[in-house]
Amino acid sequence: MEVITSLDNKLIKRLAKLKEKKYRDLEDIFLIETEHLIEEAYKRGLLEMLLILENEEIDFDVKKIYVTKNILNKLSFLNSNVKYIGVAHKFIPKDYGKRLLLLDNLQDPGNLGTIIRSAAAFNIDTIVLGDNCVDLYNDKVIRASEGMIFHVDCLRKNLESFIDELKTNNYLIIGTNVVNGINVSELSYPEKFAIIIGNEGQGISANILNKLDKSIYIPMNKKVESLNASVAASIIMYEMSKIDYE
Amino acid sequence: MEVITSLDNKLIKRLAKLKEKKYRDLEDIFLIETEHLIEEAYKRGLLEMLLILENEEIDFDVKKIYVTKNILNKLSFLNSNVKYIGVAHKFIPKDYGKRLLLLDNLQDPGNLGTIIRSAAAFNIDTIVLGDNCVDLYNDKVIRASEGMIFHVDCLRKNLESFIDELKTNNYLIIGTNVVNGINVSELSYPEKFAIIIGNEGQGISANILNKLDKSIYIPMNKKVESLNASVAASIIMYEMSKIDYE
Repeated sequence: MEVITSLDNKLIKRLAKLKEKKYRDLEDIFLIETEHLIEEAYKRGLLEMLLILENEEIDFDVKKIYVTKNILNKLSFLNSNVKYIGVAHKFIPKDYGKRLLLLDNLQDPGNLGTIIRSAAAFNIDTIVLGDNCVDLYNDKVIRASEGMIFHVDCLRKNLESFIDELKTNNYLIIGTNVVNGINVSELSYPEKFAIIIGNEGQGISANILNKLDKSIYIPMNKKVESLNASVAASIIMYEMSKIDYE
Repeated sequence: MEVITSLDNKLIKRLAKLKEKKYRDLEDIFLIETEHLIEEAYKRGLLEMLLILENEEIDFDVKKIYVTKNILNKLSFLNSNVKYIGVAHKFIPKDYGKRLLLLDNLQDPGNLGTIIRSAAAFNIDTIVLGDNCVDLYNDKVIRASEGMIFHVDCLRKNLESFIDELKTNNYLIIGTNVVNGINVSELSYPEKFAIIIGNEGQGISANILNKLDKSIYIPMNKKVESLNASVAASIIMYEMSKIDYE
């Protein structure tokens, strides 16, 4: 068993750079930790390589590289005793489905990961991130998604022009609007639609708000201004998914 | 204007200790940041004191103490340029209501704060934290609650004996159980009930599971094992709250 021991090793230095978005964008690969995430990446055929602590073993049919604790700690985002780090390919889908979730300037990585997890649960085909959203391959996003990032197609688009394209293709454009909306439980969904979730503090941008075909609201106590963005998104998707159980 | 400038000032040293749960429990007070949270604490009559950056001003009718940037930075949990830190009283309600949310070993402060926010939105009377839950006055809990921690009554109890007490008082005890549950949208709620939310990884403890009167599940795609705990709790509360709009 050959073991990489030096932090100055060329491969290790290259992988360490993947902690920054800039290098993830250049290489189209990203790091994942925890056995659960590694397994989900493997199942989807996106696991390229495994870094394994010397004298440990893990049973996946990919390239394996044994390294010291020192090296794993350098690559890890967690403070725990990590034994494996996976290198996964980004998967960029060529097309999009009929049930879309569009995220307009969503900033919190925990919210994005939670929304991806709920989108998988509630049968969204494709998540479309606007230009200003937090990076999909941020380690906190991946962890909060509980591996569902490997099971829901995600795209990045300029939302304004993408919504225009969707309108041409007869998608219903749906957003939240407390003032003039209809109750989220009363909306009839057509075959093709896009639900838009806005920024945590500001909601949906003005230039996108005026493209909505339908506004919806979640009924709630007046003492509360708004719900957490991932909770609001999940409730909307949950109500939508009822069309699959009717 | 008298300004406290020394980190060794007796009051400042005492307040700095409130970053630890042990001292919050001893003194029954806690620190809050951001104007929004300070305002919510003030509205509820729980703001005891304000620490204000010298030469700044803020309009609340409470004891004000002017301090240096150095001192605010020592007391702050945030890395931003904080201008005010509030000292708030804990509020421990004497009784509990008819609509309860029980949290069994919930560990993530972000989840707890988000659940408090949703509980306020969906008309829960009282949140009851089990012995093993994360501290209610953790700074991340308070921030994620968006100030709603000041608008929902919260208690801490031993859940096992508390559930026995609730059963004696004719509360329906409801929990999630994917295997043998009924659809969350089909449950009829009586006047008095308690919804139990379990731990992020393990769900509801075995010794509490066997006390459930009703098990419910949220219909979802089989590729997903579970939802984020705050999302699942919020969807259950959202469905429950429909009884207020019928």
